[in-house]
Amino acid sequence: MLKAVVGEPNVSTAAVVLEQHGHDESMHRCSPPDAVVWPQSVEQVSRLAALCYDHRIPIIPFGTGTGLEGGVNAIRGGICFNLTHMDRILDLNVDDFSVTVEPGVTRKALNSYLRDTGLWFPVDPGADASLCGMAATGASGTNAVRYGTMVENVVNLEVVLANGQILHTSGQGRRFRKSSAGYNLTGLFVGSEGTLGLITTATLRLHGIPEATVGAVCAFPSIQTAVDCTVQIIQSGVPVARIEFLDEVMIDACNKYSGLTNAVAPTLFLEFHGSQQGLEEQLRRTEEITQQNGSSHFVWSEELEEQNRLWAARHNAWYATLALRPGCKGYSTDVCVPISRLPEIMVQAKEDMKTSGLTGTIVGHVGDGNFHCILVFNSEDADESRRVEEFVKQLGRNALAMRGTCTGEHGIGLGKRQLLKEEIGPVGMETMRQIKSVLDPKNLMNPGKVL
Amino acid sequence: MLKAVVGEPNVSTAAVVLEQHGHDESMHRCSPPDAVVWPQSVEQVSRLAALCYDHRIPIIPFGTGTGLEGGVNAIRGGICFNLTHMDRILDLNVDDFSVTVEPGVTRKALNSYLRDTGLWFPVDPGADASLCGMAATGASGTNAVRYGTMVENVVNLEVVLANGQILHTSGQGRRFRKSSAGYNLTGLFVGSEGTLGLITTATLRLHGIPEATVGAVCAFPSIQTAVDCTVQIIQSGVPVARIEFLDEVMIDACNKYSGLTNAVAPTLFLEFHGSQQGLEEQLRRTEEITQQNGSSHFVWSEELEEQNRLWAARHNAWYATLALRPGCKGYSTDVCVPISRLPEIMVQAKEDMKTSGLTGTIVGHVGDGNFHCILVFNSEDADESRRVEEFVKQLGRNALAMRGTCTGEHGIGLGKRQLLKEEIGPVGMETMRQIKSVLDPKNLMNPGKVL
Ligand SMILES: Cc1cc2nc3c(=O)[nH]c(=O)nc-3n(C[C@H](O)[C@H](O)[C@H](O)COP(=O)(O)OP(=O)(O)OC[C@H]3O[C@@H](n4cnc5c(N)ncnc54)[C@H](O)[C@@H]3O)c2cc1C
Ligand SMILES: Cc1cc2nc3c(=O)[nH]c(=O)nc-3n(C[C@H](O)[C@H](O)[C@H](O)COP(=O)(O)OP(=O)(O)OC[C@H]3O[C@@H](n4cnc5c(N)ncnc54)[C@H](O)[C@@H]3O)c2cc1C
Repeated sequence: MLKAVVGEPNVSTAAVVLEQHGHDESMHRCSPPDAVVWPQSVEQVSRLAALCYDHRIPIIPFGTGTGLEGGVNAIRGGICFNLTHMDRILDLNVDDFSVTVEPGVTRKALNSYLRDTGLWFPVDPGADASLCGMAATGASGTNAVRYGTMVENVVNLEVVLANGQILHTSGQGRRFRKSSAGYNLTGLFVGSEGTLGLITTATLRLHGIPEATVGAVCAFPSIQTAVDCTVQIIQSGVPVARIEFLDEVMIDACNKYSGLTNAVAPTLFLEFHGSQQGLEEQLRRTEEITQQNGSSHFVWSEELEEQNRLWAARHNAWYATLALRPGCKGYSTDVCVPISRLPEIMVQAKEDMKTSGLTGTIVGHVGDGNFHCILVFNSEDADESRRVEEFVKQLGRNALAMRGTCTGEHGIGLGKRQLLKEEIGPVGMETMRQIKSVLDPKNLMNPGKVL
Repeated sequence: MLKAVVGEPNVSTAAVVLEQHGHDESMHRCSPPDAVVWPQSVEQVSRLAALCYDHRIPIIPFGTGTGLEGGVNAIRGGICFNLTHMDRILDLNVDDFSVTVEPGVTRKALNSYLRDTGLWFPVDPGADASLCGMAATGASGTNAVRYGTMVENVVNLEVVLANGQILHTSGQGRRFRKSSAGYNLTGLFVGSEGTLGLITTATLRLHGIPEATVGAVCAFPSIQTAVDCTVQIIQSGVPVARIEFLDEVMIDACNKYSGLTNAVAPTLFLEFHGSQQGLEEQLRRTEEITQQNGSSHFVWSEELEEQNRLWAARHNAWYATLALRPGCKGYSTDVCVPISRLPEIMVQAKEDMKTSGLTGTIVGHVGDGNFHCILVFNSEDADESRRVEEFVKQLGRNALAMRGTCTGEHGIGLGKRQLLKEEIGPVGMETMRQIKSVLDPKNLMNPGKVL
C-alpha cells in the first residue's frame, strides 16, 4: 500500500486535503504537492523519507493545515506527508505531568483525553491544531502569558530526519524537567516549521487544572488606555492566565458573529487561575488597575458557561472578521514587541490601517507584547492586495525598529523570509543556513520555507 | 597590549587564574592553557578569535571558573579567553523586565545593581558565577522550580563565533518576550559550554521582587518521606519558590560549618514568594502535606536575616562537605529524573554510597527532580578515586534507566561524554557533531568538551 502511493503524483487528493484543512487564506497562493502519503507509523515515515532522499523529492510535513504562513504549500512540488493517521496518545504520566502524542493528536483531543486526570495542556492557539504542528511552528496563543509557549512546554521530540534517520531530541523516552546534557536539540526543532525534519511524536509538559477559574471583560475609552492597563497588570505581578485585547471593530464583529452584547469599545478579555482565595486578590488588584485606566466596568464571572462563551467568541475572532466582508480573504499579521512599546505600535497600526483604506480588526495576546491585525481584502483587487502587503511589511518593520520580532507565534513560512533577514541579520541567517545545510544537505525538507 | 599577550605562552598566569578561580576540584586534572588573554570588548574578542582561527589555536572561554565539569581545562592547550574585564551592565529596561550583561558580570553583581528597581534575576547556582558562564552551562539552582533555568531566562546572546564573526542569536538588540522567527539560536547556544562560540553579552529576563518572602525548614523521619513530601507539594500546585533537600549528613555538616542548630535528619529548606495573603495559603497547604509525611515540626520565618542564614548555609553546602575531610577533593554528581522516581533513586544512591565506602552528602533541587551527591575523597588514593568514578557512572546510569538525564545543570564538560552518548543515542550524537562541525569547522572552540 505504501508503495502504491509513493511516487504516484496525486495532485487531486493533495488539493482536496489542502481544500479541506487549509485555513491558509493568506496572501500565499495554494501550491499542491505531487502526491500525498498517510503513513501509519514512524517506521513508515522513516522509509518514505529515505526513499524521497534517494530520489531527491521534497517532503512537506502536514499537521492540520491551520498554519497561517503558507507552511504546507508545496512550492517546489514533492510529497506531502499527512501525519493525521498517526494519532495515538502514549505514555501519560500523571505523577510527572507529562504525555507523549503522535502528530494526529490535536490540542482539543489531548485535553478531552486528559479530562479526568486533573491535568491539562494549556498552550492554545485557538485553532484545533495538531500538537506536533504547534511544536513545528513554535505556537503559543492566549495562555502563553502564564504557561509559556511550545518552547517551554515541549520536553522531547521524535524526529525523522531528511535521510530517514530517527532522532530523539532529548534521548529516547526521556522526560526530565530540565537538563544540561549537550546541545538543546529539542529547542532547535521547536519552531523549525518542517524544514529540519518530520516530528513523529512530541513529549509535552502538562499542568494541573487550576482549582478555580474566573473570566472577566473590561471596556476602555481607547486602545491606549486598554494597552496601558495591560502593561500595568503585567508589571504589578498579577499572574493573569489570559489577557486578550480586542479593538472596537473586533468587538462589534464578535457581537454579531457570536451573539455577544459587549459594549463596542476597545476591550480586554481576561482569565484568572488559582485558589478561591488567591483569585479574589487577583481580581481586586486587576479591577483597581482597570479603574485607574478609565475603565468604568469590570465584569467578571465564575460561571463556566459564561466563560466558555467568551473564549469561543475570542477563538472565532478570525471567522468573525472574515464575516465582515463575505467572499474576501483574510490575512493575520503577528508582531511582538517589548511590552512597553505596545501602546505606541498598536495605536500606529490602527491609524495606518485607516490611512491605507483597509478593513480589519485588531486582537492580541497583549500580555506577551504580541498582537494581530486581521485584514480582510479582495484578493482579486490588485491594488488592495498591494496595500495589504505594504501594510504588513511596514508593521513588521515598525516592530523590528522597536526591538521586536516580525512573528510572535505564526512562524516565517513563505511570506516573512525578507523580514527574518532584517530581524536576525546576515550572520544569523548564515548560521541558520549552515544548520539547515548540515541536517538537510539536499534541501528536501519543506524547501523554500523560513530561509 | 593585545598583541603582547596573544601568542606568548603564559602558563603561569593561566595557572594562577585557574588556581584563584578554579573551583574545579573534581576528578579532572588541571590542564592550563598556553596563554591567557583579557579582552576588553567584543571587537577585541572577535579579532583574537579570528587570529586563533587563522593559526588553528584552541580557544577556551573562561567565566569565573565555578563550573564543576572541567569545562575550562585546556586539555589541548590553546588560549584561555578570560572575559572578566568586560563587566558592564547595559540596557536595563525596568518596564520590560530585561537587562543585558557582559561576561564579567556575576549573578550577585547584577542583583545588587538591580536593588532599587524592584526587579531581580532569580537563577541562582549558589556560586557567584558569571551570568554568561551560567548561560554557557545552562545553569539553574535553587529557584528554578519556580522561575525556570537559564534556558527560560535568556532572551538574546551576542556570540563571537570560531572565525571571529559576531552573531546575535535573536537579532541585534532584540528583547521580545517570545518569537517564532527562524531557528531558536538562543536556545542552541545556552548550554553549549563554550564549544560553539564565546558569549560576549547575554540579555536576560528579569522578574519582579516578590511582595513578601517566607523561609521554612522541616525535618523528616527518612529520605523517602522527605522526597515523597516534595513530590506531593509540587503535584498539589503550591508555587513554591525553592524546595531543597539536605540529607542528615549534610545537615550535620551545615550545622558545624555555618553554625546552625537544625535537627540532624533528612530536611527540606523551603522558600515561598507571594503576597502576604497568598503566602499564608501556601504555608498552610505545605504544612499540611509535611504533616501527612510524618514531619513533626515545620518552622518558618518572615525574618530576612533568618532566611539569609538558611540560604547562606545551603549555598555553602559544598564547602561544608569538603570540611568533613580536610585536604580531600570534592566531586558533585548531578542527575535529574522524573520527579516520581526521585525517592527511589535517592534512597538507592544513599545505600550505594555506603556500600562503596564513600563519604558524601546529598543535596538537591528536588522540586525539579535534580539532586547532587557531594563526595569527598582522597585523590591520591587510587582505589578510592576508582570507587568514586564507579559510583558516579552508576548513578548516572540509574538516572538514565529512569528516563532521566546525567546532568540537570552542571553540563557535560569532560567527564560525562560517555554518559551523554548513552543518554542521547547515536543519531543524537551525530546531530550534535554535525552542528558543531559546521559552526566550528576547525574544532577550535573548547575542543574535547561535551562531544
Ligand atoms: C483561526 C486561527 C487562529 C489562530 N490563532 C493562533 C494563535 O493565537 N497562536 C498561534 O500560535 N497560532 C495561531 N494560529 C496558527 C496555527 O494554529 C498554528 O500555526 C499551528 O501551530 C499549526 O499547526 P498545524 O498542525 O495546523 O500545522 P500545519 O498548518 O499543518 O503546518 C504548519 C507548519 O508546520 C509544519 N508541520 C506541521 N506538522 C509537522 C510535523 N509533524 N513535523 C514537522 N513539521 C510539521 C508544516 O510543514 C508547516 O510548515 C491560528 C490559526 C487559525 C486558523
Ligand atoms: C559551590 C558551587 C555550587 C554550585 N551549585 C550549582 C547549582 O546549584 N546549579 C548549577 O547550575 N550550577 C552550580 N554550580 C556550577 C557553576 O556555578 C556553574 O557551572 C556556572 O554556571 C559556570 O559559570 P562560570 O562563569 O563560573 O563559568 P566557567 O566555570 O568559567 O566555565 C564553565 C563552562 O562554560 C564556558 N564558558 C564560560 N563563560 C563563557 C562565555 N562567556 N562564553 C562561552 N562559554 C563560556 C567555559 O568554557 C566552560 O566550558 C556550582 C558551583 C560551585 C563551585
